[in-house]
Amino acid sequence: MNDIKVGVLGAKGRVGQSIVEGVNTADGLTLVAEVDKGDSLQLLVDAGAQVIVDFTAPQVVMDNLEFCINNGISCVVGTTGFTEERLNTVRGWLANNPEVGVLIAPNFAISAVLTMQFAKQAARFFDSAEVIEMHHPNKLDAPSGTAIHTAQGIADARREAGMGPQPDATEQSLDGARGTLIDGIPVHAVRMQGTVAHEVVIFGAQGQSLSIRQDSYDRTSFVPGVLVGVREVQNRPGLTIGLENYLDI
Amino acid sequence: MNDIKVGVLGAKGRVGQSIVEGVNTADGLTLVAEVDKGDSLQLLVDAGAQVIVDFTAPQVVMDNLEFCINNGISCVVGTTGFTEERLNTVRGWLANNPEVGVLIAPNFAISAVLTMQFAKQAARFFDSAEVIEMHHPNKLDAPSGTAIHTAQGIADARREAGMGPQPDATEQSLDGARGTLIDGIPVHAVRMQGTVAHEVVIFGAQGQSLSIRQDSYDRTSFVPGVLVGVREVQNRPGLTIGLENYLDI
Amino acid sequence: MNDIKVGVLGAKGRVGQSIVEGVNTADGLTLVAEVDKGDSLQLLVDAGAQVIVDFTAPQVVMDNLEFCINNGISCVVGTTGFTEERLNTVRGWLANNPEVGVLIAPNFAISAVLTMQFAKQAARFFDSAEVIEMHHPNKLDAPSGTAIHTAQGIADARREAGMGPQPDATEQSLDGARGTLIDGIPVHAVRMQGTVAHEVVIFGAQGQSLSIRQDSYDRTSFVPGVLVGVREVQNRPGLTIGLENYLDI
Amino acid sequence: MNDIKVGVLGAKGRVGQSIVEGVNTADGLTLVAEVDKGDSLQLLVDAGAQVIVDFTAPQVVMDNLEFCINNGISCVVGTTGFTEERLNTVRGWLANNPEVGVLIAPNFAISAVLTMQFAKQAARFFDSAEVIEMHHPNKLDAPSGTAIHTAQGIADARREAGMGPQPDATEQSLDGARGTLIDGIPVHAVRMQGTVAHEVVIFGAQGQSLSIRQDSYDRTSFVPGVLVGVREVQNRPGLTIGLENYLDI
Repeated sequence: MNDIKVGVLGAKGRVGQSIVEGVNTADGLTLVAEVDKGDSLQLLVDAGAQVIVDFTAPQVVMDNLEFCINNGISCVVGTTGFTEERLNTVRGWLANNPEVGVLIAPNFAISAVLTMQFAKQAARFFDSAEVIEMHHPNKLDAPSGTAIHTAQGIADARREAGMGPQPDATEQSLDGARGTLIDGIPVHAVRMQGTVAHEVVIFGAQGQSLSIRQDSYDRTSFVPGVLVGVREVQNRPGLTIGLENYLDI
Repeated sequence: MNDIKVGVLGAKGRVGQSIVEGVNTADGLTLVAEVDKGDSLQLLVDAGAQVIVDFTAPQVVMDNLEFCINNGISCVVGTTGFTEERLNTVRGWLANNPEVGVLIAPNFAISAVLTMQFAKQAARFFDSAEVIEMHHPNKLDAPSGTAIHTAQGIADARREAGMGPQPDATEQSLDGARGTLIDGIPVHAVRMQGTVAHEVVIFGAQGQSLSIRQDSYDRTSFVPGVLVGVREVQNRPGLTIGLENYLDI
Repeated sequence: MNDIKVGVLGAKGRVGQSIVEGVNTADGLTLVAEVDKGDSLQLLVDAGAQVIVDFTAPQVVMDNLEFCINNGISCVVGTTGFTEERLNTVRGWLANNPEVGVLIAPNFAISAVLTMQFAKQAARFFDSAEVIEMHHPNKLDAPSGTAIHTAQGIADARREAGMGPQPDATEQSLDGARGTLIDGIPVHAVRMQGTVAHEVVIFGAQGQSLSIRQDSYDRTSFVPGVLVGVREVQNRPGLTIGLENYLDI
Repeated sequence: MNDIKVGVLGAKGRVGQSIVEGVNTADGLTLVAEVDKGDSLQLLVDAGAQVIVDFTAPQVVMDNLEFCINNGISCVVGTTGFTEERLNTVRGWLANNPEVGVLIAPNFAISAVLTMQFAKQAARFFDSAEVIEMHHPNKLDAPSGTAIHTAQGIADARREAGMGPQPDATEQSLDGARGTLIDGIPVHAVRMQGTVAHEVVIFGAQGQSLSIRQDSYDRTSFVPGVLVGVREVQNRPGLTIGLENYLDI
């Protein structure tokens, strides 16, 4: 089987360098182009890139996507700032290039994405569910966006299964002890020197509990998810939002 | 919606009592018959049971199933000792009663079943996978059957995904330090006074890990899984082996 | 070495039965008297009891202690309701019987007591400290008394070491997400079907964390701590409050 | 109170840079000298250094120590290669400079050192004890030196308390499933892509367990322990081996 030919945009940035290294050490992928500020996108076409990875900036990502889609190159995109209007523009370009795939995802940490998916699947089998996230103390928001998203997924699954509120006989509680409620699901945020980014979802039923825990140890933890995207994006024509749709679970 | 009418076989035994209590406190289920040694199975028909639960003994379970299937009663079975021959006999009875469902499962602890399923699903996204189980020190075998089964599921998923051996540079190892290899997956067994039954599957990829952990705190942890079976079995005609097939994940 | 002769008060109650069983299976202890409602305390003297265990009731414990102390029998006491006035009365009896030891403790779960002690010892070495407790959903108060006590011990140790507030850059927080502050230490309470009583203390410093976790799996987890008390109480004349004082750590 | 004046040897190396940064951001310490290959040690004296940190190399550390001790400068040393002969040489220098303190330690990760100390203290209260360590898959030895050392500490504490072998009814075991025995304590080694260095000690007694867990998230986790050494070494004249002796627990 031939290797997939991969181009990386923003290749000189910190994130881009990690992606370059990830592609270079992955089986079945060949890095054919590294593009950074000032480089012509034509480099991608000349090098025969089949898939590009874009973790650049909101100001340039739309130009990148227009060029790549119109040249038949599929795209794996971690850049932020996609409004519904921007997504519709992308859909328009794809309508004219129906064989091209584009994956746009807010979170490529595959362990975090799987945690959210498994939590949704498990939710209806357990009376109780709570989320605890732990991050370094420089984080500005609490709880994390991922924890909120996880709790909402659990709440949706409980609602669909017709489940009522969680059992909780608490009568005397100190303010904040029971966390913050996200759509009925308690979420607790820990801020801890020395840690990076961690989340655990705990489910409880009679005589048992199930815990799904995700630990990020460094800032390159998005790389394996990007590689999943690169390997799959050509098989998924059109626009896909969220890495979870590529995982077939 | 009408309640499902449930009969419990072996209702006076320790396990049967837990099931009786579980049915009695569950929404949507009504206990209509408790049958124990010496009681006539006709009690089930007279009470209008739609589903029975059988955690009895290998010597009596086949008679129980023949009677129930022939009377149009679906069956949730945790009794052991089902050989391929016995399963074929059950399939024969079901062929004559195609609307009846029978679920036979070796493990109704839903947190353990979900751990195995999620482990299979996650396996192909991670370079490394190991299983650690922990049980009370009176257990005779190590590792547990569940841990072996979990490891085999991971190994199968890795094989299907075309993955090679796990990264492991160990050169100097004390005997046993790296666990036992089940189909290439290291499994570690801890025996610990005071604990019950616990299993954690750890997956690792660049910069991150995912842990799926199951804790059983007491011997009634099979009840929620039995209730899932009772609610579903009438919708799944024919023979199903393994609770995981009812979970739609 | 001769066995210690032990008497159990309230021996027929649920807690008393667990203590009787614990003494009977322990090395170096011999159960010589089981006393329950209606029995004469003279039984203890006749049987030669050297140490008694009292998990009875506030209404009877003072009479029990007066009798035992005056008869030279040391006492391990888990009964509640000891006011400062009651403690002074006990001290008065002990003044007349200076060789007798009495241990009164609110918590005999040795894993919980050790968690509190280790947390106090570790606190001054870490920038961050938080406490998470998890209990069954029938618990009325949140957080648990043990978690509050643990947090206070950490706060005291930080204060003694001249440490300032914990690092926490949180600017946007949903109400309750960061737990409740006990003397500056965040405490989070999880209520989870199927669990029993669990507590984890997490400490963080540059590049590392230390977690001390206590799990109670059933309601007999006080027994090992009671046995520590029984073995030690004769060597510690006078009144001791709190099992931690017997642990020599 | 005046700041302690600190000099760093090997200040330009990767480890040295982390120490320089740690000293610079710590309260109560002032960095007065950075010495690297080719620099004169006289710089330390000229700058008025009271304490030096040496994470250099076996070839140069003895010269460094001789100079510092003879100049009344206390030393915190993480350099390896100290034989008994070398230690005696250091003791000789210290005999002539009795006010100087020297700390030589193989492990400055304070969470790991505390884990070992707490494990020793807890050991005699629990029937069961096992150690699980987890490291990145490039590690050459299994189990880690720290895990072996931890297990030996537990074994010593059990022996001193007159405890027998751990309860373990295992009759059928796959080879390696129960780990390797270090002086009777089972130790399990996990090798996991993405992780760094982690260790958990689990203790079990009737109805409960106690877990002490240490996580190192990056290679600077030795810094907090070095700072403890720097703050204390002037108060501890003579040679001390092992950071645990500075922790007063």
